[in-house]
Amino acid sequence: MKGEVKLGILGGGQLGRMLLQAGLDFNLYTLILDPDENAPCKDLCNEFYVGNFRDFDTVYEFGRNCHILTIEIEHVNADALEKLEEEGVKVYPDAKTVRTIQDKGLQKEFYKQHNIPTADFRILKDKQELQENLSFLPAFQKLRREGYDGRGVTRLASEADLGKAFEEPSVLEKLVDFEKEISVIVARNAKGEVSAFPMVELSFHPEHNLVDSLFAPANVSEVLQQQAKEIAMRVISSFEMVGILAVEMFLTKDGQILVNEVAPRPHNSGHHTIKANFTSQYEQHLRAIMNLPLGATDIQSAAVMLNLLGEPGHDGEAAYDGLQDALAVPGVYIHLYGKKFTRPARKMGHVTVLGESLEQAQQRAESVKNVIKVKAL
Amino acid sequence: MKGEVKLGILGGGQLGRMLLQAGLDFNLYTLILDPDENAPCKDLCNEFYVGNFRDFDTVYEFGRNCHILTIEIEHVNADALEKLEEEGVKVYPDAKTVRTIQDKGLQKEFYKQHNIPTADFRILKDKQELQENLSFLPAFQKLRREGYDGRGVTRLASEADLGKAFEEPSVLEKLVDFEKEISVIVARNAKGEVSAFPMVELSFHPEHNLVDSLFAPANVSEVLQQQAKEIAMRVISSFEMVGILAVEMFLTKDGQILVNEVAPRPHNSGHHTIKANFTSQYEQHLRAIMNLPLGATDIQSAAVMLNLLGEPGHDGEAAYDGLQDALAVPGVYIHLYGKKFTRPARKMGHVTVLGESLEQAQQRAESVKNVIKVKAL
Repeated sequence: MKGEVKLGILGGGQLGRMLLQAGLDFNLYTLILDPDENAPCKDLCNEFYVGNFRDFDTVYEFGRNCHILTIEIEHVNADALEKLEEEGVKVYPDAKTVRTIQDKGLQKEFYKQHNIPTADFRILKDKQELQENLSFLPAFQKLRREGYDGRGVTRLASEADLGKAFEEPSVLEKLVDFEKEISVIVARNAKGEVSAFPMVELSFHPEHNLVDSLFAPANVSEVLQQQAKEIAMRVISSFEMVGILAVEMFLTKDGQILVNEVAPRPHNSGHHTIKANFTSQYEQHLRAIMNLPLGATDIQSAAVMLNLLGEPGHDGEAAYDGLQDALAVPGVYIHLYGKKFTRPARKMGHVTVLGESLEQAQQRAESVKNVIKVKAL
Repeated sequence: MKGEVKLGILGGGQLGRMLLQAGLDFNLYTLILDPDENAPCKDLCNEFYVGNFRDFDTVYEFGRNCHILTIEIEHVNADALEKLEEEGVKVYPDAKTVRTIQDKGLQKEFYKQHNIPTADFRILKDKQELQENLSFLPAFQKLRREGYDGRGVTRLASEADLGKAFEEPSVLEKLVDFEKEISVIVARNAKGEVSAFPMVELSFHPEHNLVDSLFAPANVSEVLQQQAKEIAMRVISSFEMVGILAVEMFLTKDGQILVNEVAPRPHNSGHHTIKANFTSQYEQHLRAIMNLPLGATDIQSAAVMLNLLGEPGHDGEAAYDGLQDALAVPGVYIHLYGKKFTRPARKMGHVTVLGESLEQAQQRAESVKNVIKVKAL
């Protein structure tokens, strides 16, 4: 490396924060754009800009100062990304990939075009079209744009649920009778080198539809793990994108693997890699976008990852109860995100629980689950 | 944790930088004092002060704004630490321990008082007293104060070497016919809980007298490992200090363990723990000074750590050659320290090489040794 690499990140939340934390080891000069002046990345980068990453001019002006531009959230202005690409900024993931992934309709069509297994679907312009597809229920209706962390998704069991349906353009996705939800994070650098992390199993919070916990290695046969890995590698190669891509998949009761959705950035399902794998997802993303050789993804320790969500009924300056008790359990590591204010179900941090075996990690995780509480002061 | 913990660190070099990196996970509010306006910690803390940590007023004024005050270098003003302690700041390590360790004479006397095995020594006021102790040679003469990274140490084989001897107050230390140099990092929190990391073996650069590489687990019998661990734990308990303490020891050819010297802060011999152990030395130090339960120190992967020193003959803005080749080797991780300028033998970063076995890690390390070169632009 000669001179400083200026890395811009659109979004200054926890994913950006952990990316900066990993980036320190590479001597990067970092710039962050986020609408929140108290964003978790605020004091950790060389230049922090308050601004809207959905706005063309804001993203364009920000990106012009960067050698490499990346994202920690996909809801950014893709037109600005495209213009920056044309002007020689290395935009990873590229505008075309971001545009496809931003729109769940385009995303599903992309899978179909590239023979990537995914649940059957219909693209709907409006509620009127939903009426014409009642025979497709039960299904999930997902807004084409702006869905995030369970927002913009509704379950329609039958005609009786039409009152809950969205009016806006959406994707109607056949309900999958799945046994497990799994995730494989893959990386690809500009040389075209592709690498996959070992599969993780996700468990979702029944109420918030947020990832609640995950564990690795997954309790899934070697054959299925290999299949899922190949599918995930095929997805990233089809996008021809550079960076990391989290590929969330369903494992159906009849042994099929279906791609649910993808995120072209560090992902909640890869947080445990900081402590549990040779290379973390954050370092892997940096290696990919800097066109360095990808790192080994081997598991060092079995791990369970628990999200720390703001307690229901608590809104205000955050305080963390139970840290002493949780950290007294061997193998327990906290990662707080530097968010000043908590609100119900806000992602405030995560806990990684390591073990010599998955069973040990799970026992330890069970003993610390619900011990740490994020409350308002 | 309620409200923000304000952690001050005296020194803003690479050890402070890696401590801040670990501190992010604990939502700490961080303040740094360093004489160099380009110190590696500059852009990573909440408040950065340029100032001399050897100056009473500077340290006192800085420390008054902190809840907890710690160090990344031991050559700080101990009187100011003492006054801050009296005023209720949690100073870890405490003034008394820092004062003892700053002075190699007091340090050696401390070992003697506490029955901690160490090489035989004489305390010398000046060169005149050295003349009176010629029968004690061969020995190392070490300045009582300010020695660091091989500076302030001279080897006196016989009277013929008197020309190289120091005039200042010093310790004359019997030459130890050692087989290995080893290090055990121990931690102690305010509750008195003590924990040790597994032993590492050090290998020194023949010219610079700096740690060149180290590896873990050490290739030493279980019995000796256990003895060394007990000695290191006895040292930290004798100091009654809070924080981590790196205990460097000699393993003599006749199977004795002798304490060489200690550092009451994160240490070069613990860098590998970031990648290779459950808990890193940096997180362990933070847990200790925040009076949290100490973390498990288990080895996740065998590791070799290589220091990246500035190339001879290169002085100026730093550039890093060979990263592509080095990172192509599985298990190789770089940690650059964000230093703008290189000079011969300056510590610019380190490389951790992981393996499933020590043999594998050592083979990989051999293939990357001398591949990365830190040059001037």
